[in-house]
Amino acid sequence: MIKVGIVGGTGYTGVELLRLLAQHPHAEVAVITSRSEAGVRVADLYPNLRGHYDGLAFSVPDSATLGACDVVFFATPHGVAHALAGELLETGTRLIDLSADFRLQDAEEWARWYGQPHGAPALLPEAVYGLPEVNREAIRQARLIAVPGCYPTATQLGFLPLLEAGLADPSRLIADCKSGVSGAGRGAKVGSLLCETSESLMAYAVKGHRHLPEIAQGLRRAAGGPVGLTFVPHLTPMIRGIHATLYATVADTAVDLQALYEKRYADEPFVDVMPAGSHPETRSVRGGNVCRIAVHRPQGGDLVVVLSVIDNLVKGASGQAIQNMNILFGFDERDGLSHAALMP
Amino acid sequence: MIKVGIVGGTGYTGVELLRLLAQHPHAEVAVITSRSEAGVRVADLYPNLRGHYDGLAFSVPDSATLGACDVVFFATPHGVAHALAGELLETGTRLIDLSADFRLQDAEEWARWYGQPHGAPALLPEAVYGLPEVNREAIRQARLIAVPGCYPTATQLGFLPLLEAGLADPSRLIADCKSGVSGAGRGAKVGSLLCETSESLMAYAVKGHRHLPEIAQGLRRAAGGPVGLTFVPHLTPMIRGIHATLYATVADTAVDLQALYEKRYADEPFVDVMPAGSHPETRSVRGGNVCRIAVHRPQGGDLVVVLSVIDNLVKGASGQAIQNMNILFGFDERDGLSHAALMP
Amino acid sequence: MIKVGIVGGTGYTGVELLRLLAQHPHAEVAVITSRSEAGVRVADLYPNLRGHYDGLAFSVPDSATLGACDVVFFATPHGVAHALAGELLETGTRLIDLSADFRLQDAEEWARWYGQPHGAPALLPEAVYGLPEVNREAIRQARLIAVPGCYPTATQLGFLPLLEAGLADPSRLIADCKSGVSGAGRGAKVGSLLCETSESLMAYAVKGHRHLPEIAQGLRRAAGGPVGLTFVPHLTPMIRGIHATLYATVADTAVDLQALYEKRYADEPFVDVMPAGSHPETRSVRGGNVCRIAVHRPQGGDLVVVLSVIDNLVKGASGQAIQNMNILFGFDERDGLSHAALMP
Amino acid sequence: MIKVGIVGGTGYTGVELLRLLAQHPHAEVAVITSRSEAGVRVADLYPNLRGHYDGLAFSVPDSATLGACDVVFFATPHGVAHALAGELLETGTRLIDLSADFRLQDAEEWARWYGQPHGAPALLPEAVYGLPEVNREAIRQARLIAVPGCYPTATQLGFLPLLEAGLADPSRLIADCKSGVSGAGRGAKVGSLLCETSESLMAYAVKGHRHLPEIAQGLRRAAGGPVGLTFVPHLTPMIRGIHATLYATVADTAVDLQALYEKRYADEPFVDVMPAGSHPETRSVRGGNVCRIAVHRPQGGDLVVVLSVIDNLVKGASGQAIQNMNILFGFDERDGLSHAALMP
Repeated sequence: MIKVGIVGGTGYTGVELLRLLAQHPHAEVAVITSRSEAGVRVADLYPNLRGHYDGLAFSVPDSATLGACDVVFFATPHGVAHALAGELLETGTRLIDLSADFRLQDAEEWARWYGQPHGAPALLPEAVYGLPEVNREAIRQARLIAVPGCYPTATQLGFLPLLEAGLADPSRLIADCKSGVSGAGRGAKVGSLLCETSESLMAYAVKGHRHLPEIAQGLRRAAGGPVGLTFVPHLTPMIRGIHATLYATVADTAVDLQALYEKRYADEPFVDVMPAGSHPETRSVRGGNVCRIAVHRPQGGDLVVVLSVIDNLVKGASGQAIQNMNILFGFDERDGLSHAALMP
Repeated sequence: MIKVGIVGGTGYTGVELLRLLAQHPHAEVAVITSRSEAGVRVADLYPNLRGHYDGLAFSVPDSATLGACDVVFFATPHGVAHALAGELLETGTRLIDLSADFRLQDAEEWARWYGQPHGAPALLPEAVYGLPEVNREAIRQARLIAVPGCYPTATQLGFLPLLEAGLADPSRLIADCKSGVSGAGRGAKVGSLLCETSESLMAYAVKGHRHLPEIAQGLRRAAGGPVGLTFVPHLTPMIRGIHATLYATVADTAVDLQALYEKRYADEPFVDVMPAGSHPETRSVRGGNVCRIAVHRPQGGDLVVVLSVIDNLVKGASGQAIQNMNILFGFDERDGLSHAALMP
Repeated sequence: MIKVGIVGGTGYTGVELLRLLAQHPHAEVAVITSRSEAGVRVADLYPNLRGHYDGLAFSVPDSATLGACDVVFFATPHGVAHALAGELLETGTRLIDLSADFRLQDAEEWARWYGQPHGAPALLPEAVYGLPEVNREAIRQARLIAVPGCYPTATQLGFLPLLEAGLADPSRLIADCKSGVSGAGRGAKVGSLLCETSESLMAYAVKGHRHLPEIAQGLRRAAGGPVGLTFVPHLTPMIRGIHATLYATVADTAVDLQALYEKRYADEPFVDVMPAGSHPETRSVRGGNVCRIAVHRPQGGDLVVVLSVIDNLVKGASGQAIQNMNILFGFDERDGLSHAALMP
Repeated sequence: MIKVGIVGGTGYTGVELLRLLAQHPHAEVAVITSRSEAGVRVADLYPNLRGHYDGLAFSVPDSATLGACDVVFFATPHGVAHALAGELLETGTRLIDLSADFRLQDAEEWARWYGQPHGAPALLPEAVYGLPEVNREAIRQARLIAVPGCYPTATQLGFLPLLEAGLADPSRLIADCKSGVSGAGRGAKVGSLLCETSESLMAYAVKGHRHLPEIAQGLRRAAGGPVGLTFVPHLTPMIRGIHATLYATVADTAVDLQALYEKRYADEPFVDVMPAGSHPETRSVRGGNVCRIAVHRPQGGDLVVVLSVIDNLVKGASGQAIQNMNILFGFDERDGLSHAALMP
């Protein structure tokens, strides 16, 4: 059993870490911190956890306690991991950061999109982008892992086979993405109220969303060069789920895209290439760590449409974080993540 | 007061016609037909109408009774208007067909997409496509009006200014559309159950949806030539609303798109071009006959993103049908349609 | 045209007043105040109102401007009307308060439930409880009207016929009420987030809810003596709607309850007694000012079950406020409120 | 590993059995039958199961194949288990019936409520009502187990402590119950469409619901005599969840109800008595096998209000069925059922 610490456990990615780790055969949560809820038992804040963590209460963050853990997850707003990572790494613990703090390799780009200076640029060179389908080997050796964002996970997994194979025109990529409201977090915002979001649908941040540079960075790696990406996120009236609808133009329409995708992900435990003609539903991954993908070429044209769905809180956050932990500690990559999605 | 007949009034577009016509100053529903519910009072099937239509019951369709109306709406599955239109037109009544029967000008194309021969090709030459923003003058003289589909309304209104101005590359148009479940009708289908559609989102009919040829036909007219259109509809967990997210490439990035759109729709009572930078929500048109549009050019590139929202049952069906009726009979185009949308 | 002022128009009852008054033939909104949104156009905050109030912006509350109105609605948290009512009444304007400030006749009881002293006890004697089905005559003469709360409206209208007729045991009344989330207002509270309320249902305030004394006060009047009431509100995953399920024991099981209810409400424009055996749905009143009621006596026993539904924002707040205004100014009671509910 | 058969696996309780059994350490699904879907792979019908049951397809029901299983679950409409149970029991397999076929001990009462003769009255004497909190010992020895219905589970667990202790007046019990739509099954019914059930709430079957005699039978046992029960079910706009709000009058208000409930369920792995003053949310049990209960006595009166929540598909159906299986085969009662609920 490894000892796990969680910094900032009161949000949705925090409770999701707790839910998933409750079933993990080789990890147990030893510490969970929250300044605002210090002293409160986690099962009092999240009654779904009653019977699972009855002795565990939120505590004030403290380097000594966290440093005694084998691994520490950051489930915090951006900026917090910047402030604490350096000190914690010195204790020898491994860090898995669910926030955006170490996702962009370029500190200046980070500063532009997040409106504040990067707080730990010296750590960037060793930060590993925790997308196992791309970086599994690097993850095994990492001390500091940046878990990809939700939109970036669904979008990259959908585009990767096309770009790695050099099939798609990298200058004209479109990601039309639809997210459930939990992607906006547990903050008390008018815009996340049921009465503001239910029975409605809207695009947002068309001008530029913080996940845009992260996605572009990943697609550049896959394409081996610059990419042109238009990313339009939408807020949709459901709790969980991301549906990425991806558009790319291919020069060669003779390629068997279905075979390409199946081959690319043949050994991936958490990417499911669905049969040709499928339309994956977000509910088919609700609560599960899977990304389901279908690839289409409508009317036999040169425009490829890729459908990619994940649960934003699982494969798009906490589940992927645990998948990284499993790789890092040499566990079976499926440990704690093998349950079926909840449907209906 | 004109006398209105409705054929096939038990579905969602039927009840929406009733709801809207209950407030109309110059029209009253004299006949409503349904074979399955003949004899049932409309207020027993739709209790929201109690107090509004207490004397009105569904009756078996009958040419004499319908022919005595000034106008007859078809709120029926495809094929029904084909069978009845000819006979009714001979009585001198005007027909406003909410189904797909007369939307496509090409009978063979219709037959291909609907899997059966066109039932009234002789009437096609005089059928007017009832999109007032394009065909207002023709509507005034029409005997037979084909009310546009829901996706086609939102999509065409969003693309028209770009295409009519010759700004967009017509060969690379993408319409990523999201619809509420009422678009699937009131039929008892597993795929429309709350437990199958709530808390989930999926694309469907990526291979080819029946609204594709209708949209393409309208865009060809606007572009003055052939178009290449990719249309991906999505089913989203809400009752009403369509959000069309439209992508087009422009050659000239110096054009003031906001001014272009505002000018195009300056005199349109039911198209609202929102301020630059807006993200229209579908709930802002719930129950209302408005199409709200915002136009974006993210990151200053050459890809234009148009956001276009309607209520699929109102501007996408029954409201637009009444707008057509108002034009046809010389009423104020806003009659019965001037109420604000329901929000929250 | 009378001139209407609205104090505190940024919440859900405020926007609902605007939506309904936009169609009113004899009233126009001249002033709407909000400290937090002063200077913002109402149509910018509520895009459903675009095209309806394009010249109207929120302003800082000001007695002179409000005093120039014929009637002022308070759509404010409790305490605000206490502070402003006295001064405004001196200007001769009529006040219709949607808050709880003048609903309880007993200032001390108010102070106990609201945790602060009553701010205007001197005005209580002339405050009229604005339930038209009970106080229509008093409303005609009122200067200050307290619009009933949402739960109290549904519950009182459901119980009144039984209690006024002396049929029910007044000591054992139970009101099991279910509300949509809009009843909690537009405040940024974690408990009202979509992710906290969607796909879930819970009781709350079982210990004691502020609407309890208001309901009990109304039931005492109807019963002509003390009542014993258990009131259990529930939060349910929808935007609008209240469903009150009411339980009372009757001594005489021979009474024709259906006839009793129909007779009691025969002349009421906004109470609809449904046919025997009905189960009213909240959606049948969505957006409308109607209360629909059905009365049952299951298994022929002595326990009566009354089902009573309203839209909490309309008959439970803003619609009822306008109904009061109509009575007060001698308009047709249905003015601005005659539209059908939105279904589906 | 025991071999499990499932009859009628295409409905929601069928897929839920599959979801839960996929994690079971000692059971594997060997056969699943469906006449309508014979030959279809379960993962094609339920894509959430992709990767879990890739070799399993629906087959036509067949006694030999089913008889080779150690246990057979019936997830069928009523009447089916009547027809098959006798023959299957002769093969020595154990039967766990999720339908209503063997819940009522009185065949005539069953016939009255289900409108057809009881099909296997000879088996009734040995049928065990599978509520472990009441019948654990009998379950261990059973050949034929009738899994309680969803409303009956939530209602009985909420009332039992009061009735077994002789505290409540058994003649005046009220169960006001709220259910998600999945309780209505996966049948293609207009009344279960998203557009008919979302954003609305209604009571139904107030006259008499089939779960009424089942609940009454269980309460009689607990009370040791006749009971008077009023049961009002409501349909609420969510997929999963039952919230039972129970009302009972107590003669002795000095009893410590909290202690009573905690003691009654102290050793129960799946009943969680929440702290005094709690309001359990249905989402706190979503996907989990727990019943959470809170007990209140508002305003210190003699009316007790019990709040009891379950997931209707888990503790109200498939989870409880597996709990019965675990008891029957001597497994740990928590096997396959120990995961935390999904929240948010």
